[in-house]
Amino acid sequence: MISVEDARALLFELVTPLSAETVHLAAAGGRILAQNVAATRDQPPFEASSMDGYAVKATEVELHAMFKVIGESAAGKRFEGKVGPGQAVRIFTGAPMPDGADFVVIQEDVERRDSLITITHPPGEKTNVRPAGIDFAVGTKIKAPRQLRPEDIALLAAMNIASVPVTCKPVVALISTGNELVMPGETPGPDQIIASNTFGLKALLENNGAHVRVLPIAQDTVGSLETAFGLAQGADLVVTIGGASVGEYDLVADVSEGLGLEQSFYKIRMRPGKPLMAGRLGDAAMVGLPGNPVSAMVCGYLFLVPMVRRMLGIEDVLPPLQQAQLKAPLTENGGREHYMRAIVDSDGIRACDDQDSSLLSVLAHANALLVRQPNDPARPPGDKVTYLPI
Amino acid sequence: MISVEDARALLFELVTPLSAETVHLAAAGGRILAQNVAATRDQPPFEASSMDGYAVKATEVELHAMFKVIGESAAGKRFEGKVGPGQAVRIFTGAPMPDGADFVVIQEDVERRDSLITITHPPGEKTNVRPAGIDFAVGTKIKAPRQLRPEDIALLAAMNIASVPVTCKPVVALISTGNELVMPGETPGPDQIIASNTFGLKALLENNGAHVRVLPIAQDTVGSLETAFGLAQGADLVVTIGGASVGEYDLVADVSEGLGLEQSFYKIRMRPGKPLMAGRLGDAAMVGLPGNPVSAMVCGYLFLVPMVRRMLGIEDVLPPLQQAQLKAPLTENGGREHYMRAIVDSDGIRACDDQDSSLLSVLAHANALLVRQPNDPARPPGDKVTYLPI
Repeated sequence: MISVEDARALLFELVTPLSAETVHLAAAGGRILAQNVAATRDQPPFEASSMDGYAVKATEVELHAMFKVIGESAAGKRFEGKVGPGQAVRIFTGAPMPDGADFVVIQEDVERRDSLITITHPPGEKTNVRPAGIDFAVGTKIKAPRQLRPEDIALLAAMNIASVPVTCKPVVALISTGNELVMPGETPGPDQIIASNTFGLKALLENNGAHVRVLPIAQDTVGSLETAFGLAQGADLVVTIGGASVGEYDLVADVSEGLGLEQSFYKIRMRPGKPLMAGRLGDAAMVGLPGNPVSAMVCGYLFLVPMVRRMLGIEDVLPPLQQAQLKAPLTENGGREHYMRAIVDSDGIRACDDQDSSLLSVLAHANALLVRQPNDPARPPGDKVTYLPI
Repeated sequence: MISVEDARALLFELVTPLSAETVHLAAAGGRILAQNVAATRDQPPFEASSMDGYAVKATEVELHAMFKVIGESAAGKRFEGKVGPGQAVRIFTGAPMPDGADFVVIQEDVERRDSLITITHPPGEKTNVRPAGIDFAVGTKIKAPRQLRPEDIALLAAMNIASVPVTCKPVVALISTGNELVMPGETPGPDQIIASNTFGLKALLENNGAHVRVLPIAQDTVGSLETAFGLAQGADLVVTIGGASVGEYDLVADVSEGLGLEQSFYKIRMRPGKPLMAGRLGDAAMVGLPGNPVSAMVCGYLFLVPMVRRMLGIEDVLPPLQQAQLKAPLTENGGREHYMRAIVDSDGIRACDDQDSSLLSVLAHANALLVRQPNDPARPPGDKVTYLPI
């Protein structure tokens, strides 16, 4: 058995950043920028007014000065002439400054009568002129990799970058295995239960940028598993759930090895989730998760999400651990790293009472996984502990 | 002019939670559960083994005890007979307990020869049996409203709830206005710039559960604006960007009032974003955002996202403000609430140098909006301040 950290290092060896595809800006939110992009223009592309007012010569600006308004510069339609001595041009926010003018007197500081304005309030020192290119200039880069936030999308639009190179979405194929499983919406037999892991993992991995294919449930037969692996063709990551334990009916290891799996490791020194196996299966990475619902989801957070993030080319792939104060004591931990379902709020963190790895209701109630190191001693309230928000 | 808080209260009066639609579980991640749902079954539906081992009578369990293995209970296929005295049934994790047995000796604690097992290690007190319904029972509720996390999706699947009632996605129509604007990918004239706000706001609102329709840019004419409002028909929220200031070319207020807008308010005592107007336009709420890119995005966070959350039926709709220590001093604030672009990390928060509301590059660099109250005094490093993560 290996540690969680060693397992993750080995899993990272199974995947590499995927290639890029080009998407329209309207579909690029949340995607990972795959290559540096550069502005194709200056912003603003011209000297622009930052206020509504009158464009004049700065040297002529003083209280009680009068100007003759000779035209207008609006956003989208500049004044084509030149501002001479004693002249002003009506101007609006964002409009190009006319030639000859280098100061905007805001409209609140003037009185206008027909085509004459008088400065009636001290206009101050600020010119209210935005230099060309003050936001960005031709060639200003946005550097990859970067997950594109709404602000980035707005900036890319302003740069007139309508198509964006982003990392392809990793395709993850999920295979639930077990004669006891039926799909949600079906009528289970008396000995059967509903396949829940694939749906939970699908939501988790899609939240993290993957494209998920839920495959038909594989029965506990060689033929059924081989069919499922066949249907997984083309995926970047194939995940089986269940059938990775040691019982006679755990066929996943046998079948995947028969199909050419180069096994990387088997079993991790952790709770929940010990029976996890991984390897390389043709062009894809393969991970075999345990079938207990909570184990599968915890392994999703600890291993599958980081693998997806690595395939997306994200630099910071590790689970974002945080710290909080214990609100209730913890007993001594055993020899395996333990990811306890827990509830954290601004006052601290408390492990849930029942840590049985079959209890989805407890997991759905929790909002954190409290991390215990192997043989971590008993801990009193007030101790600082590490957790992963979920 | 009204305060940000008062404006938000008035905006909330313009929207109500939308009706529900039914979606398949596979598409329900991140959606808002609209009605309570209840488990249609017990989980586990039968007493089940929590380990791989042998099911026996608890009263017979002691070191060196021997049993005859009379059959097997696998997940999905129970043992149909009854376990009598001195008998054992091979059993796997999750499989139904056979009649007559109430204890599972784990396989690591026995030695097997043909059909005989001997307990070779003290099996302890734990029965390794999960009672029926220990995870959830028929009728166990998941309560609305609730944003469905991956764990909830797994739990809903286990409950065999294949279709889920979720709040309809609010439809938001975005209209950029201004003769100076062209769409990304087009070739702007010398006086033109690229419409960036609609794309940034689309990403922001979609992240928060809306369905966004980007409408064609409206020119600064009555006809063009009327066409845009016509195209917005059917939206729950119509948002214009630009044209809400006081210049002669700001037609949005005139045209929307001509179309029957019942104005709720006009102008908010804040920076950036003062010229914001809102009202009821037929069946839709209408918000007119200022055209400066940073103003539009900040108003998106402060007003549009909460409105979308309210339409989704989410209880906690306010922006999630947090606190941090100042790393650099702040000068005194003016009479308007100020949302300064800022960068926060584990050491504290620092306002960006240039707060001009036209600078998208600064906004894209920032990860927080530092909130200043009206007339907030100058503040030294170390002071606690409030911010909104972006």
